[in-house]
Amino acid sequence: MAKKSKTYDKFLVKVKEISYLNQALALLRWDQETYMPPGTVNDRAQQVALLSGIIHETVTSKAMGRMLAELKKDKSLDEDQKVNVREFARDFKRATALPPKLVKELSETESLAMDAWLRSRKELNFKVFEPWLVKTIELKNKVAEHIGYEDQPYDALLEEYEPMMLTKDVEAILTPFRKKLVPLVAKIAKAAKEAKVDDSFLKGDFNIEAQRIFFTEIVKAMGYNFERGRLDVTTHPFTIGEALDVRITTRYNPKDLRPGLFACIHEAGHGLYEQGTLEKNYHTPLGVAISLGIHESQSRLWENIVGRSLPFWKFYLPKMQKTFPALGNVPLDRWYKAINNVQPSFIRVEADEVTYNLHILLRFELEKEILEGKVKASELPSVWNERMEKYLGIVPPDDVQGCLQDVHWSCGLVGYFPTYTLGNLLSAQIYYKIKKDITGLEDGFAKGKFTPLLNWLREKIHRQGRRYMYLDTCKRVSGTALDEDNFMRYLKEKYGSLFGIQF
Amino acid sequence: MAKKSKTYDKFLVKVKEISYLNQALALLRWDQETYMPPGTVNDRAQQVALLSGIIHETVTSKAMGRMLAELKKDKSLDEDQKVNVREFARDFKRATALPPKLVKELSETESLAMDAWLRSRKELNFKVFEPWLVKTIELKNKVAEHIGYEDQPYDALLEEYEPMMLTKDVEAILTPFRKKLVPLVAKIAKAAKEAKVDDSFLKGDFNIEAQRIFFTEIVKAMGYNFERGRLDVTTHPFTIGEALDVRITTRYNPKDLRPGLFACIHEAGHGLYEQGTLEKNYHTPLGVAISLGIHESQSRLWENIVGRSLPFWKFYLPKMQKTFPALGNVPLDRWYKAINNVQPSFIRVEADEVTYNLHILLRFELEKEILEGKVKASELPSVWNERMEKYLGIVPPDDVQGCLQDVHWSCGLVGYFPTYTLGNLLSAQIYYKIKKDITGLEDGFAKGKFTPLLNWLREKIHRQGRRYMYLDTCKRVSGTALDEDNFMRYLKEKYGSLFGIQF
Repeated sequence: MAKKSKTYDKFLVKVKEISYLNQALALLRWDQETYMPPGTVNDRAQQVALLSGIIHETVTSKAMGRMLAELKKDKSLDEDQKVNVREFARDFKRATALPPKLVKELSETESLAMDAWLRSRKELNFKVFEPWLVKTIELKNKVAEHIGYEDQPYDALLEEYEPMMLTKDVEAILTPFRKKLVPLVAKIAKAAKEAKVDDSFLKGDFNIEAQRIFFTEIVKAMGYNFERGRLDVTTHPFTIGEALDVRITTRYNPKDLRPGLFACIHEAGHGLYEQGTLEKNYHTPLGVAISLGIHESQSRLWENIVGRSLPFWKFYLPKMQKTFPALGNVPLDRWYKAINNVQPSFIRVEADEVTYNLHILLRFELEKEILEGKVKASELPSVWNERMEKYLGIVPPDDVQGCLQDVHWSCGLVGYFPTYTLGNLLSAQIYYKIKKDITGLEDGFAKGKFTPLLNWLREKIHRQGRRYMYLDTCKRVSGTALDEDNFMRYLKEKYGSLFGIQF
Repeated sequence: MAKKSKTYDKFLVKVKEISYLNQALALLRWDQETYMPPGTVNDRAQQVALLSGIIHETVTSKAMGRMLAELKKDKSLDEDQKVNVREFARDFKRATALPPKLVKELSETESLAMDAWLRSRKELNFKVFEPWLVKTIELKNKVAEHIGYEDQPYDALLEEYEPMMLTKDVEAILTPFRKKLVPLVAKIAKAAKEAKVDDSFLKGDFNIEAQRIFFTEIVKAMGYNFERGRLDVTTHPFTIGEALDVRITTRYNPKDLRPGLFACIHEAGHGLYEQGTLEKNYHTPLGVAISLGIHESQSRLWENIVGRSLPFWKFYLPKMQKTFPALGNVPLDRWYKAINNVQPSFIRVEADEVTYNLHILLRFELEKEILEGKVKASELPSVWNERMEKYLGIVPPDDVQGCLQDVHWSCGLVGYFPTYTLGNLLSAQIYYKIKKDITGLEDGFAKGKFTPLLNWLREKIHRQGRRYMYLDTCKRVSGTALDEDNFMRYLKEKYGSLFGIQF
């Protein structure tokens, strides 16, 4: 017994070291996007490569392999210890699966593919990127072979972002969802168009420092802890870090409050999740978030279901109008309609919450089909455009507004896209359960009170760290298996009432 | 030949890795003082300890020892390669000299001594700090025994900040200097007092953002490269980093422009030195600064000899008065006199450039005497006060304004103080040579032109990295061995003319 726990203790020391080094790596990355002088970039690349290498060596060391082998058989471990061993063993398996030569080829290809992607956008020429997409897909198939999979290569890629979920599980959810969503989007978009929503008052002059102060107050009211976090400015908003250091970023538009505001709420949703693991578990797998799908359910719940709701704005609109006189004193119902306008559009990151998932479903289908060889890289632009027309009824005028818009495939992120929609579906399913559990939840929002919501999320989700996977989490916290019904109900209730639609 | 250069190449790879890891460590430290959330402090301590440990292991590895032993005997290396081997071997020797137990004891003592120092200041009670000073001195004597020394233990401590300089060399310079400086200070202070300098206009309301913009312009004019650096705010100004990432900090006082301004110029002086090594030498000993004495000569030259000079203010005063109307339109000569007022005072960091060195000489003498056991720790307050009276003619009303004012001894910095005065002496000796070499140097300052000065410093000093030591550097660039004459001449010329004193 004493001998056994000694191995676990040694294992934990190494696991924590890796966590601290990952925090240092996160700081190098955060600084690169926030305050790093532009001319430092080559030194930073070397620092990141070196530290990543040290972390990789520590994760994959022979000593670690031996400890894991011993601990996996150790019946004396308690439940928490077993989770830490199970989860770290998964990291170990993925980190040791790829031969160093392939890792090097992947990293070189990513940097060249990114470059080609930028050029192809600049020159409006998909052909520049095409060979790099071919190469990326070829390498990703190799990765899948090395990692192994149950049914199909896509499983192995998906697993990195959504552990222990299979492609067929995702399809079983997303395919019926898509079939219901396409006609719903058409119906809501038609009604919204006929309603001729006036959102002209959303544009104006909004002092950036005033935005920062106002949005910081909102993020604080949500419960984000600035004692252990920061809010800074980056080109693309993100959340980074774990344990005592979880930082979020946003971007401000001096002519429009929405981009900065909703990015703040979205990233704070991610940040609250990472800040909400149990402090005693910090620096171990139980002290960090497990899946991108669950992560996205948190950010989307706060951003869309709370942050774009009527009660939320009942509280914040008067304050916002006081801070930003340029907004005028438009009434609450017009404001609410304006920030929830629905229209099919080309760019995913600018899409409203109704059309958004169709952008995702299209990408999920296409990356799978390309990986399987059913669609050739050269066919991507035409297949993309066909499917945009089929799902959203519009055709991009060029590839920059089409298949070249996202950075993901150029930096090797294949298998990542479905987690956005998994997050949206989960957020609605969780939310209906929370409304049942907490009386007066939305009346609280209308008074600026979000603590009951946060406490619920903390207890049921955040504290669990990497204990439960995405599908298990859903069943455990909502009481039913994940499906598209709750999200469809959410859209129908919200947009039915907004645009007077009968479903 | 091929085999030999192969070892040097391998050595260089490791040396560069250490440099990149040191950059990452510097970022952890920079962030801790600038943007880190306060609640992150425990995680940060772990990250710093871990990364420091990894760096220490890499520096002191057996493989490194073998490479150095081979390279030291290698006659085929060129001059630059020899310098890199010589300098890295010095780092290796210091890093391997101390037994791990002593290193641990030092680091634990530092953190507890710092704590006691803070408490002793708060409680105005030297007795709280006294046992920790005893312990620190005891450990520092042990360090000296392990490192080894030529004449006396202080040599081994001094060497960390001022390589290859002996205590007797320092004394041979500072003792005659002190003897001349004490009466000079008395004379200048008396004249300044009789002149009843009006500096009331230096106090006012100065917008901090306006200060930041204005000081940034000055720092840019000096030649500091913001493409590879930043200027931020910290409690205590500092310069950190090397190669492509050298950052400086300052602090702003909304009621007084001087603290922020002169800290900017001072730190930019340090920053220019680190930015000025040759790019091809980055990440090797030839690509970083060698000694604190030389470092301080750069910061002091810019801060005092340039930044407190009449030509400098001929250019900047009108601009500053335009930016800060609170300054009024006081004429140049009154401004010049006000920012160069001389009065003995208790606090080193607030002292003027005339009295400043007496603060240093006192500390240098006392730390040496305590290390040798000639002064007991318990006697420090009384000996401090006696010597203040002897050198500066004033007695601190309490120990916070006396022997408890500096952080150095509480964090293990023994042997550091003399480098401040070595810097001042060198700055004057260099400056008279530069004035000879560059016609119209100060006329250039009066037009805001500092490039000729920077180019001279770059060529003669910055580019050399760790090639030449402090005393060699002085002889090489000024043509004569270091002495106090140039600095004395500088003070007499400047303050004689300012306060109408005949020397």
